[in-house]
Amino acid sequence: MTEKISIQTSASSKNDQIAAENRDFFKKNGLLALNLISSAGSGKTSLLEAMAKKYGKSLAVITGDIQMTYDADRITQAGSLAVQIETHGTCHLTAAMIQDKLKEMDLKDVKLLVIENIGNLVCPSTYDLGEKFKIALVSTAEGDEKPIKYPALFLRASVVMVTKIDLMPYVNFNLERVKSDCLKLNPNARLMTTSCKTGEGLDEWYGYLEGLMA
Amino acid sequence: MTEKISIQTSASSKNDQIAAENRDFFKKNGLLALNLISSAGSGKTSLLEAMAKKYGKSLAVITGDIQMTYDADRITQAGSLAVQIETHGTCHLTAAMIQDKLKEMDLKDVKLLVIENIGNLVCPSTYDLGEKFKIALVSTAEGDEKPIKYPALFLRASVVMVTKIDLMPYVNFNLERVKSDCLKLNPNARLMTTSCKTGEGLDEWYGYLEGLMA
Repeated sequence: MTEKISIQTSASSKNDQIAAENRDFFKKNGLLALNLISSAGSGKTSLLEAMAKKYGKSLAVITGDIQMTYDADRITQAGSLAVQIETHGTCHLTAAMIQDKLKEMDLKDVKLLVIENIGNLVCPSTYDLGEKFKIALVSTAEGDEKPIKYPALFLRASVVMVTKIDLMPYVNFNLERVKSDCLKLNPNARLMTTSCKTGEGLDEWYGYLEGLMA
Repeated sequence: MTEKISIQTSASSKNDQIAAENRDFFKKNGLLALNLISSAGSGKTSLLEAMAKKYGKSLAVITGDIQMTYDADRITQAGSLAVQIETHGTCHLTAAMIQDKLKEMDLKDVKLLVIENIGNLVCPSTYDLGEKFKIALVSTAEGDEKPIKYPALFLRASVVMVTKIDLMPYVNFNLERVKSDCLKLNPNARLMTTSCKTGEGLDEWYGYLEGLMA
C-alpha cells in the first residue's frame, strides 16, 4: 500500500512538473491554452468545429482519442490545425503527452490552443496539462446530476458550459439546479449555456475567449 | 517497461481469476448477472429505475459510483435492492470489488443482478466482472460515432441499447450507421432501441431478459 501511494505521488509530481513546463511554453509563445473535459457525447467536437469556423488558423486543437482520427478530421475540415494523441486505452491525457505533441506542431499563427481531453468525467479531472483553465461541458441530455456526481471535475473547472440547450424542451434537465450545484463547488465558476445547432450562447463564449486573449 | 507489463498482466490475470469465481457464484445461486456500461448520462440509472418498477425484489443492482449514493437511492426508491460501490476516483469496477460486495447482499429472492459500471466508455470495457454479458448503452443525444470511437467496448458487448430514442427528431443521429458499425465489430451483437420516457422498446428488453432467465 505504501509503495503504491509513493509510486502514485511520484507520477503525479512528475506530471505537475511537466505541466509547469508546458505552462511556461504557452506563456512564452503567447498562447491561451484550455483543457476541455466532458463525458463522451457532450458536444466537445461540435463546439470545436464551430470555433474552427470562427477562428481558422489562429486556433489549434490537440485532441485526445483512444484511437482513430475522427475528431481531428472534423476540426481540420472546419479550418483549424488539429493534431491527435492516440492514447491506446489510457483514459486521460498527461502533461508529457502534450509536451511531446507541441514539439511537432507549427504554432506560428496560433493564439488559442484547446486540448480536447478523452471523453470521460473521471480520469482527466486531476491531471494538470499546463492549461490556463479547465472547461467542463455537460449536455442537457445527460442529466442535471453531473456536478454533484463528479465533483473532482467541477471543483476545478473555471467554466462550465451547458451544451445542447436546444434540447431543453424535450429532456428533464433542471438548469437552475446545475448552476446552484456548480457554484457550491466552485463559487468562481463561470456558467454558460450554448447550442451548436442554433448558435445560442456562442457569442458570449467567443467574447469571453477574446477578452482573455486581448 | 518489462516490469510495467508484467505488473499489468498480473493484475489482469488476478482480475480474471476472481471474475471466474464470481461467475461460479452466480451460476450456483441461479443469478443472471449483467454488466451495464455507458458514458455518463446515457440513461443507465433511468433504465434500472424502469426495471426496478417491473421486477421489484427479484432484481438487485450493484452500482459503481465515484462517490455519493445518488444512483443507488433512485433504484431503491423504485423498488429493488441497490447497493453501491464507491470507487473514490477509480474509473472502473473490478471483479474483487464485486466479490466483496456480494458477501454483504441478501440475494435470496434475486434472479437478476445488474452491475451498473462507472460511467465511461473506456476503462470499464476490459474488466471481466464475472457477468453473463456486457450491455453497452448509447443515447441518441451522444452522437452516432461511439461504436467506432470505442471499439474495445462494442467488440465485447452482447447487447447494444440505443437509449433516448424519443429524442431522434431533435438530434443528428444515424441509427443505421450505429447498427452497421456495431455489427462490423461484433456480428452477434443484439441491437435494441428504447426510451424510458415513452416506454418504447422496453417490452423487447424485458422479453429478452426473461428468455435468458427461463
